[in-house]
Amino acid sequence: MTGQAKYRFTNIISTFIFDADFNLIDKGEDIKGKYKEAVKPEGRALYNILKYFNKPEYLKQFYKANIKITKRAIKESTGKDNLIIQAVNSVEDLKVIANKLAKRLREWYELYNPEFSRSIADHARFAELITLKSRIELLKKTGISESASMGADLEQKDIDVILLLAEEIKAIYKTKVNLEKYINTAMTESCPNITALAGSIIGAKLLEHAGSFKKLMLMPASTVQLLGAEKALFRHLKTGARCPKYGIILQHPLVAKAKDKAKAARMLADKISLAAKIDYFKGDFIGDKMRKELGAKIR
Amino acid sequence: MTGQAKYRFTNIISTFIFDADFNLIDKGEDIKGKYKEAVKPEGRALYNILKYFNKPEYLKQFYKANIKITKRAIKESTGKDNLIIQAVNSVEDLKVIANKLAKRLREWYELYNPEFSRSIADHARFAELITLKSRIELLKKTGISESASMGADLEQKDIDVILLLAEEIKAIYKTKVNLEKYINTAMTESCPNITALAGSIIGAKLLEHAGSFKKLMLMPASTVQLLGAEKALFRHLKTGARCPKYGIILQHPLVAKAKDKAKAARMLADKISLAAKIDYFKGDFIGDKMRKELGAKIR
Repeated sequence: MTGQAKYRFTNIISTFIFDADFNLIDKGEDIKGKYKEAVKPEGRALYNILKYFNKPEYLKQFYKANIKITKRAIKESTGKDNLIIQAVNSVEDLKVIANKLAKRLREWYELYNPEFSRSIADHARFAELITLKSRIELLKKTGISESASMGADLEQKDIDVILLLAEEIKAIYKTKVNLEKYINTAMTESCPNITALAGSIIGAKLLEHAGSFKKLMLMPASTVQLLGAEKALFRHLKTGARCPKYGIILQHPLVAKAKDKAKAARMLADKISLAAKIDYFKGDFIGDKMRKELGAKIR
Repeated sequence: MTGQAKYRFTNIISTFIFDADFNLIDKGEDIKGKYKEAVKPEGRALYNILKYFNKPEYLKQFYKANIKITKRAIKESTGKDNLIIQAVNSVEDLKVIANKLAKRLREWYELYNPEFSRSIADHARFAELITLKSRIELLKKTGISESASMGADLEQKDIDVILLLAEEIKAIYKTKVNLEKYINTAMTESCPNITALAGSIIGAKLLEHAGSFKKLMLMPASTVQLLGAEKALFRHLKTGARCPKYGIILQHPLVAKAKDKAKAARMLADKISLAAKIDYFKGDFIGDKMRKELGAKIR
């Protein structure tokens, strides 16, 4: 037998309504309005109600509800910044990999035609050119004929396998470009001000070094300035070596071309730190304006 | 005025015929038979003839002929073994690269669906499966549905860029397989006995570590046994640490599965060393027979 609703108790499973003898009357997510007279239990009442849940069936429900909450929390913890960080890490990997394979390709191809390999410095262009069908004509134009080459006379199948590697390298470069496009779109969406100021790749690298968007937002400008120069910074702190003046942001054209790089880095870091705060709290877009101002100041 | 042919002199430019007063009568590659009476100059005559070539026009010709000879020598120095070494190096590179990218892919994909990534250990299969169009059904079968995953709910474009990386990894694995096929064909052609005994990849790696086919052929069996364990060997020689017992050939199934690995490695190295000599001098094919004998002995 149950009496009138007296206590209202909410835990991670649901909301429960008890009478004065701690018998369960009702439960559900949206029953707060239905039992307006019920109050939150306190003291002895709370003790009795907590005791009520000390049953195997509830333990199981607690367990399930807990996992559900944890899963949801993990799910929601993945923001756009995590995706951007993964993408920019992949781009870095692909860059290193393409370079490594391109060096291997050159070494291999040089057994066949060393003169041609030496005449083209850019790796991507080299892979592009040797897989061209109209390569022979191109070679004639540059005056490097394959028969006059000091490279070995290879069978077609020996050349084909070299070109297979060249095709792979081309594909890696293409994937890298596509990832960069994705980073650009995602950065423009999530961090329009940072992107306008620093560019999408530098912006994404800053996110990556900071660890997350929130962490980057909370960083003082002086830390942003040195992101990516951690090794030099700790050497400075430990051994008293010179303090580094810039990290990743040295890659920014405004800093790289500046006469006083340290000063330019400081100014850029100031603006990026501000932009991160604006972006994080979905403020207005003033990135273009900031960039123009900065350009004028540094010049 | 020129007299009768007296001297015949050959250098890298051509063959020259002189009269008694050292005037040039004729020159060309195939004129030896035409002037049978001419003799090789000696002493004073040789001195005079060498002096004759000390003219700017001949210096230019010497220079050109020299470059031609050098180019030909370089061209001819490239054997099949160089190509195989390049290919096997590329395969090693691709292996490392595919692993590295696959780890990156997993980390990225786990933001979306960690349960699925954890359920498949093999990298190549993982890249294969997540790019499958019928993936959804597969997930249902394995009981891992994407909506119940603790991974984030991503937009399609966020997933597409992850799959782009997966496609790249698949392509790298495919290129690796094609290079291995090439190595297999090339090894079977150039080193049939080594290939039958050790397999094409181990054989190619031995070539690579030896530096060339000739060097491998000249190596004693004990050196072949330790190819690829150079670091441990030098540590042994320097610090008196334990001597390594096998290098690359440990990868061979007969050695890897043997109870006494050191003994099996020694026996295999003996046979490979013999096979290298047979292959180098284009001997008969007895690789299959040797392999059978070896298998019986080790077991």
